[in-house]
Amino acid sequence: MKRTIGTIGVLTSGGDAPGMNAAIRAVVRAAIQRGLRTVGVEHGFTGLLDGCFLDMDLRSVGNILQRGGTILGTSRSPEFMTEEGRLRAADQLRRAGIDALIVIGGEGSFKGAAKLEEECGIPMMGIPATIDNDVYGTDFAIGFDTAVNTAIEAIDRLRDTAESHGRVFFVEVMGRQTGFLALEIGLAGGAMDILVPEFTDDFDHLADLLRDSVGQGRQSSIIVVSEGDKAGGVFQVADQVAKRISIDYRVAILGHIQRGGAPTARDRILGARLGAGAVHGLLHGRSGCMVGEVAERITVTPFPETWQRVKSLDAELVELMRELSG
Amino acid sequence: MKRTIGTIGVLTSGGDAPGMNAAIRAVVRAAIQRGLRTVGVEHGFTGLLDGCFLDMDLRSVGNILQRGGTILGTSRSPEFMTEEGRLRAADQLRRAGIDALIVIGGEGSFKGAAKLEEECGIPMMGIPATIDNDVYGTDFAIGFDTAVNTAIEAIDRLRDTAESHGRVFFVEVMGRQTGFLALEIGLAGGAMDILVPEFTDDFDHLADLLRDSVGQGRQSSIIVVSEGDKAGGVFQVADQVAKRISIDYRVAILGHIQRGGAPTARDRILGARLGAGAVHGLLHGRSGCMVGEVAERITVTPFPETWQRVKSLDAELVELMRELSG
Amino acid sequence: MKRTIGTIGVLTSGGDAPGMNAAIRAVVRAAIQRGLRTVGVEHGFTGLLDGCFLDMDLRSVGNILQRGGTILGTSRSPEFMTEEGRLRAADQLRRAGIDALIVIGGEGSFKGAAKLEEECGIPMMGIPATIDNDVYGTDFAIGFDTAVNTAIEAIDRLRDTAESHGRVFFVEVMGRQTGFLALEIGLAGGAMDILVPEFTDDFDHLADLLRDSVGQGRQSSIIVVSEGDKAGGVFQVADQVAKRISIDYRVAILGHIQRGGAPTARDRILGARLGAGAVHGLLHGRSGCMVGEVAERITVTPFPETWQRVKSLDAELVELMRELSG
Amino acid sequence: MKRTIGTIGVLTSGGDAPGMNAAIRAVVRAAIQRGLRTVGVEHGFTGLLDGCFLDMDLRSVGNILQRGGTILGTSRSPEFMTEEGRLRAADQLRRAGIDALIVIGGEGSFKGAAKLEEECGIPMMGIPATIDNDVYGTDFAIGFDTAVNTAIEAIDRLRDTAESHGRVFFVEVMGRQTGFLALEIGLAGGAMDILVPEFTDDFDHLADLLRDSVGQGRQSSIIVVSEGDKAGGVFQVADQVAKRISIDYRVAILGHIQRGGAPTARDRILGARLGAGAVHGLLHGRSGCMVGEVAERITVTPFPETWQRVKSLDAELVELMRELSG
Repeated sequence: MKRTIGTIGVLTSGGDAPGMNAAIRAVVRAAIQRGLRTVGVEHGFTGLLDGCFLDMDLRSVGNILQRGGTILGTSRSPEFMTEEGRLRAADQLRRAGIDALIVIGGEGSFKGAAKLEEECGIPMMGIPATIDNDVYGTDFAIGFDTAVNTAIEAIDRLRDTAESHGRVFFVEVMGRQTGFLALEIGLAGGAMDILVPEFTDDFDHLADLLRDSVGQGRQSSIIVVSEGDKAGGVFQVADQVAKRISIDYRVAILGHIQRGGAPTARDRILGARLGAGAVHGLLHGRSGCMVGEVAERITVTPFPETWQRVKSLDAELVELMRELSG
Repeated sequence: MKRTIGTIGVLTSGGDAPGMNAAIRAVVRAAIQRGLRTVGVEHGFTGLLDGCFLDMDLRSVGNILQRGGTILGTSRSPEFMTEEGRLRAADQLRRAGIDALIVIGGEGSFKGAAKLEEECGIPMMGIPATIDNDVYGTDFAIGFDTAVNTAIEAIDRLRDTAESHGRVFFVEVMGRQTGFLALEIGLAGGAMDILVPEFTDDFDHLADLLRDSVGQGRQSSIIVVSEGDKAGGVFQVADQVAKRISIDYRVAILGHIQRGGAPTARDRILGARLGAGAVHGLLHGRSGCMVGEVAERITVTPFPETWQRVKSLDAELVELMRELSG
Repeated sequence: MKRTIGTIGVLTSGGDAPGMNAAIRAVVRAAIQRGLRTVGVEHGFTGLLDGCFLDMDLRSVGNILQRGGTILGTSRSPEFMTEEGRLRAADQLRRAGIDALIVIGGEGSFKGAAKLEEECGIPMMGIPATIDNDVYGTDFAIGFDTAVNTAIEAIDRLRDTAESHGRVFFVEVMGRQTGFLALEIGLAGGAMDILVPEFTDDFDHLADLLRDSVGQGRQSSIIVVSEGDKAGGVFQVADQVAKRISIDYRVAILGHIQRGGAPTARDRILGARLGAGAVHGLLHGRSGCMVGEVAERITVTPFPETWQRVKSLDAELVELMRELSG
Repeated sequence: MKRTIGTIGVLTSGGDAPGMNAAIRAVVRAAIQRGLRTVGVEHGFTGLLDGCFLDMDLRSVGNILQRGGTILGTSRSPEFMTEEGRLRAADQLRRAGIDALIVIGGEGSFKGAAKLEEECGIPMMGIPATIDNDVYGTDFAIGFDTAVNTAIEAIDRLRDTAESHGRVFFVEVMGRQTGFLALEIGLAGGAMDILVPEFTDDFDHLADLLRDSVGQGRQSSIIVVSEGDKAGGVFQVADQVAKRISIDYRVAILGHIQRGGAPTARDRILGARLGAGAVHGLLHGRSGCMVGEVAERITVTPFPETWQRVKSLDAELVELMRELSG
C-alpha cells in the first residue's frame, strides 16, 4: 500500500559535507515537480526538537549548488538520542504536517532516523553524506570526492616545497576509523605509502622504501597517514620512521579544510541523484532505507545494514597503491 | 600461449586530456615492478614514424601526476593512416626492440592501433583518454571528469555575473558529436536546460521555461549547449530563443580551457587503474583491446567495438536533468 | 563646513567586478561603527529610479566577502542619463532619507553620479570597480587583480594543450579600449607577445618572434590579444600572423569568465580600504570625488578627472614585457 | 667604474616561495637579452659549496612560471655561515667563471651574501622572496601574495563548516615573528580578530567581541592567530578564550600548504620585475643591495638595512582591521 505523502521534510545532520546543498536542492525540486510541499528543518535533529522549520520553494534552493556546507545548518544532538527527545521530535513533525522525512548525513544520523521511524511511524529516508565515506550501502557518500580533491590540491602544494628542499612530508588526512580518504588521496597524490587503520603499520618496510628512493636519487616523498591509524597520529608515525632512517621531514595535518569548499561535479551530481532518488523512494512506498550509488546505479539499503555491515577498502585499489607506490 | 614481453612502448595520441600523465606514470611503474623496460614514444604516431623514442625510468615519471596535457606530446598523423606509414611504424618498433605498445587516446587512435597490430603482429593495448568521453567500452574516459569540473568552475563564475545583472547565459561546451560533457555540466552546473546532439532542440519549450522562471521572480539562468548541437552552435541557439522571448542574454564559449589543467583525483586514479590494467592485460596475453572502467570495475573491449558500438547518454541522468532543471 | 550625515546609501553600477561585495561590506561596517544607518540600493541606478531600497545591517553583509558579483545587483540605466531621470532619482533619495550616496562602478557611473550631485546637491562618493582597470585616479580598480588571476589560470590550462601539441594559442582577453588586462596577463602568463590598443600591431615582428622561437626548438607559444586591439579581434590577428608564417594555431576567447569568481585577497583588501575610505571621506566633508589607491596610499580624485584624464599603461611594465618575452 | 660582467649566477636560498621561478626566469631572460651567460646554482648555498652549477638557457626556464617552489632547489647551509665555507664558495664561483651572483631569498640569505661579497669581492644582488614578507626594503616579498590567497581560500572552506555548525574557528597562519600574513589574511578572510606578535593579546576584548556577535545572532566566526603570537600558539589562544566564554570551537593550523602552489599573477609580475631589476642593477654597477618594490616602484636597499631596519605593519591596515572586524 502506498502512503499518501503531501509534505516532505528534509534535514542535514552530523558533520557537514560538500554536496549536501545539491541534495537539498534535488529533494526540493523533485518534490515540487510532483506537487509536494517541502519543509526544511534547520540545525539537524537539534532544530527538529525545537521546531525550526522553514518552507522551501524554488528560490530557497537557488544559487546554492556551488556552496560548501549546508544551508540548513547541522548539529549533533545528544537529546535526540533519548526516547523522550525523539517523542518530542515526532510531535514537532506532526504539528508541522510533515508526512515523511529525508535525513542527509552519516550512519549516526541514520541510527537516529531509524529509531524515530520505528517509534513514531513517520517514514524516513536516508542520504549518505560524509567526507569519510564510511557508510555501507554506497560506493561513494556525498562529500568524499570533494574532500579527496581538496586534499590532493594541498598535497600538490606540499610537493612544491618537498621537491625544492628534498624533503619527506608526512600528511595526516581525515577518515575517522577508516582509510577510504587516505587510500584515494594516496593514489591520486602519488604518495610513496599510506598508513590506514585497516592494516598494521610496517615501519621497517616504509624505511626501506625511503632508503631505496634516496638510492634512486629521489629526495622528496609524500606519506599519507589516516587520522585513525593505530600508531596514534602522524607525529607518532614520523617518529617511528625517523628512528629507522635519517631523513629531513615535515609533518602536515590537513584538518578541517578537507570539509569545506565548492563541491566537485561528481558530488553535485551524486547529490542530485540521491536527493531525487530519496523522494522517488518515499513516493514508491519505501522507507527505513538509505539510497546509495553502487556500481554507478541507484540502490536502497535498509537502515540497520548501513551500520551493521562493514564497508571494506576496495582490494583492487589497495593492490594498485602497493604496485605504483614506492 | 603467453608471449614473452621484455619491452613495452607507450604513446599518447589525438587530443590531449588531463590524466594522460597519470596513465603514463602507471604504465611505467607497473612495468618496472615486473622487470620490464619501458620506452616512451614522443609526439604520438608522428613520433613513432620518426623513431622519437625515450627510455623511461622512475625519474621520467616523477612529479608529473598533477600536470595537465601529456609529457610525451601528442599529434594527429595523416601519414600513419596509410599502409605505407604503418609499415614504417612497425619497422621503428622492431628496431627499438618494443614488444608491445600501449596507446592512450580516443577511438581514432584505436583504429590506427588495431590496423597496426593486424598488419605487423605487435600486440597493442588501448587506454581511453578523451575529454569528450565518446568511447564505447568505458563509463569514463580519462580527462572527462576534469573537463566537467573545469566547465562548472567557469559556470560558477558566469553565474556571478548572471545573478548580478539578471541575465541569461548560453554556454557552449565541447563534446564533438555527443552530449556527455553537456549533460554532466548541465546537471552539476544547475543549468535550466541542455541542448545536445542526441535530442532535437525544442526552442518553444526552452522559451516557456524562461518565461516561467521570470514569472517566479528569477532573472538569471544558464543554458548549456553542446558544440555538436544541430542548431549549429551557441549563437544560433541564442538567436532562436531570442526570437521567442525578450531576454537580456550573453553567450560564452568555454573552448580549449576545458582541455587543460591539473587532473582531478578521479582522473588520476582512473589513469592509474587503466595504466596498470593495460600492462597486466598485455602480460596476460591480451591484445587488440581497450581497457576501460564499467560499473567501477576494470574491463577489456576489443578495439573494433570501441568505434562500432555506440555509447549512449545515461537515460537516468537525462531524466534527472529534466526533473531538476527549469 | 561639515554636513551632518545620518544615512548613507550605497549602490553598484555598470559591469560587475569581484570585490564589489567587499566594498559594500566595508561601507556598511564602517558606517555602523560610526553610528550611521546604511541603505542598499538594488540594481544600480535603475533600482534607484524605482526606489528599490534595502536596510543594511551586519547580517546583510555576513558571509559575502568571498562571493563574486554584487549582492545588490547592477545595471546600465539609459533613463538615468536623462535629466528627468535624475530628478526622479534625487526624489527617491530624499524620500528614503539618504543624506549621501556611495557609487561603486566605473567612469560611466561616476559621470552619472557627478551630474546627480550637481543637480540635487546630495553628496556623492565613488569607488572604482571594473576589471578593465581603465579609471584614472587609482592604480588598481576593484576586480582587476581577480580578472588577471582568472585569465592566467585559463592560460596555464591552454599551455598544457599548447605544449602537448606544439601549438600557438592566440588568446583574447577583455579590457575594452585599454590594454591593462592584456599587459599584466601577458607578463604573468609568460606570453610571447601582447597586442593592445595603445600600440600599433607589428605582425612582421610577431612572425619573426615565432620564427626565432621555432628555431630555438620551441613549438608552443601564447600570444595575448586585447579585445580592443585595432586589428579588430583575435581572429584577425591570427589571420595576419598565419599569412606570414606557417604555424599550427588555435584561438581562445576568454570572455565573461574573467568577470566572476571569488575575489583575490588583493581585491578584498582593496574593497575594504576603498569602502571604508569612502565613508571617511564623506564624514570629512568630501564629495564629488572618487577614492582610489595610488602608490599603495588612499587618495581622492575629483569625479571629472576620472574620465577626462587618461590613465596610461605603466611604461616600466611595457618595457619589461618586451625584455622578457619572445 | 662599471665592472665587466660576462656571467651571472643565480641561486635560491632559505624557505621556498611561490614566484621564485618567475624571478629565476626573469634573471635568465634579461641576462640573455644583454648577451650574458647565466649559471644556475642548485640547492642554494649548499650547492654553491659543492659546485652544483647548471648552464641556463631559454629552454631551462620554459614552462616554469606557473610552478610553485624553485626549480633550482634550496637549502639552509650551516657551513656557509663559517668563513671557511664562504672561502670555498668564492673559489667555486671563480672556477665557474661567475662574475656576479643574484641571491633570491630572505634576510638570512642576504646576510650570507653580504659577507661573501665583502670577503671575496664578487658583486651580489638580492631579491626578496619569503612568504612571511618580513624583509625591510620592499612592500612585498615574492610569495607573500600567493600565501595570503592560499590561506583565504582555506578560510573560505573553514567558513563553510563554521557556518553550517555555528562554530568559531581559530586559524593559525605562518609569519614567524611578524604579523604581515595574519593581518592581510584577517582582512581578506573577514576575520573577527587577529592575534599577532606585534601587539599584546587582549583575550577579554576578544571574548567581548564573541559575546556581542552571538548577541547579534551570529554563531560562527574566524579568528586568525599568527604562529609567532606571544600566547605560544593557536591552542593556547583558544584555551584563553574558552576560559572566558563558552563557545563551540575548532582549531586549524594551515601549516606548509601556505608555501606551495602556482604563484598568483602579482607574485609572477613581482618576480619578473625584481629578476630583471637585479640584472639591470648589476650591469649599472650596483651591488651589495637588495632590489625591492616600494610604493609600486623598483628600489634598491643596501643589504645591512634589510635586516637592521624593522619593517612595521601598515598602520592604516591595522586600523582598518579594527574598524571592519568584530
